[in-house]
Amino acid sequence: MVLLKGAEVSAKIQKEVERQLEAMDGYVPVLAVVRVGERPDDLSYEKSALSRMKKFGMKGISFAFPEDVSMEKFRKEFARINEAPEIDGILLLRPLPAQLDEKEIERMICPEKDLDGICPENIAKVFAGDETGFAPCTAEAVIRLLKAYEIPMEGKRAVIVGRSMVVGRPLSMLLLKENATVTVCHTRTKNLKEICRQGEILVAAAGRARMLGGEFVGEGAVAVDVGINVDENGTLCGDMDLDSVGQKASMATPVPGGIGAVTTAVLAEHLVRAAAGRSKRNVV
Amino acid sequence: MVLLKGAEVSAKIQKEVERQLEAMDGYVPVLAVVRVGERPDDLSYEKSALSRMKKFGMKGISFAFPEDVSMEKFRKEFARINEAPEIDGILLLRPLPAQLDEKEIERMICPEKDLDGICPENIAKVFAGDETGFAPCTAEAVIRLLKAYEIPMEGKRAVIVGRSMVVGRPLSMLLLKENATVTVCHTRTKNLKEICRQGEILVAAAGRARMLGGEFVGEGAVAVDVGINVDENGTLCGDMDLDSVGQKASMATPVPGGIGAVTTAVLAEHLVRAAAGRSKRNVV
Repeated sequence: MVLLKGAEVSAKIQKEVERQLEAMDGYVPVLAVVRVGERPDDLSYEKSALSRMKKFGMKGISFAFPEDVSMEKFRKEFARINEAPEIDGILLLRPLPAQLDEKEIERMICPEKDLDGICPENIAKVFAGDETGFAPCTAEAVIRLLKAYEIPMEGKRAVIVGRSMVVGRPLSMLLLKENATVTVCHTRTKNLKEICRQGEILVAAAGRARMLGGEFVGEGAVAVDVGINVDENGTLCGDMDLDSVGQKASMATPVPGGIGAVTTAVLAEHLVRAAAGRSKRNVV
Repeated sequence: MVLLKGAEVSAKIQKEVERQLEAMDGYVPVLAVVRVGERPDDLSYEKSALSRMKKFGMKGISFAFPEDVSMEKFRKEFARINEAPEIDGILLLRPLPAQLDEKEIERMICPEKDLDGICPENIAKVFAGDETGFAPCTAEAVIRLLKAYEIPMEGKRAVIVGRSMVVGRPLSMLLLKENATVTVCHTRTKNLKEICRQGEILVAAAGRARMLGGEFVGEGAVAVDVGINVDENGTLCGDMDLDSVGQKASMATPVPGGIGAVTTAVLAEHLVRAAAGRSKRNVV
């Protein structure tokens, strides 16, 4: 079984980002990471996003708000970040606490700075297969990994487990764009095992630690694990049981070391693209 | 085999619309049908939409433009219709001729008047499973028909043939919302026959006259035909060959007399909802 390693894909994306940066005459794009509260997974994602931007030759700034920030205050501060000419792109860590109207913020975010594809304009573009917008980074990371390993998608049966707005749904549209035949499964799916085994490409994005073992994998399938969970022993693990999945799959991603690393690389690529787009429009 | 008749579903929707109209104190909602050129299918859809609004106790007005109308002129006229306080909802017949920027018009249309769900806000809502917006009428008509005939969707395998923005893609999201396990097939799908046969609910929305016969239908499946085509003899027909499909399906929609009638009924329901929403916001 071939292990699909995120680091190799990320290195390819880094080269592409560096090439684009060279064309920008020394301009250093700036990412704003907007975080409310101190959730450990937010802190961990923020840390890796900031260090990835730095590694790729760009800049990341953290805008952190107390967990009990009021909507009024947050709306004002978010608008300031959204409008700041020195900020090229925004990553909003979600979900936001209950007192904040997440949908309002999603509608507010400037489409050109919306690197994780959360505003209606970018969602509609993903839906329509229009690549001029930004897709959610994690969903796009799956496509980038498959392409980097030259795994054909056209005409293949792709089965996605999970229907979130962050991965399952947008990924179904991105895979359609690649001409895969796409099936979306979820908690109410019957015969999940049988349907998963039909996937020539199987993507786990359910958010349940090691829920898929080898019995869910068709012989020779490509298995992509988007899950990042902490098991009962405090160990980081995916939605797949890699030891078991590896008995059936021809290729599979590990967790950690798989999609996660690609996701922040895609974020970096979105940042340089956002900055290039803004400079073209003389916004910088 | 049970024939799933659109007229019966439409009659149910009519009752619901009349109930909502009663609550509006004699106000008569107004639909604007915007058409460019004289394409026969546009004229036919316009005619049935206008007569349906009348039958349901509402009003439809046709705004027709010459096929060679300039973008400048059309943009101005469309903006006028979009902003007119006496217009509650808009149906834009598409595709527009090449000289018109369809995407710009889609972005322009006021979400509250966008009865066929073509603007980014409504697309994003369909994608998110948020029912406060408007889904494309044809896609929603499929769900309404299945519900009217009390055909369970939860946990069922639904297979859609076709991935258009008008039916296939939005319908995949609406079926997901009903907890079906959804597969989207298209021209690049391999083993189409085998995959279609796995569908407990099979929806044809490919736009190819009689492309699906009984060999594509699983024993006892529910077959829904969204296609409206004219065959080589000038006869109106669907994407399914009903005689052949009827040998395998437990239930199927005819063409004509199936989804088409439900689509304009859904349009009418969207219109009364749009008018009610506007009156609540004191826009009328």
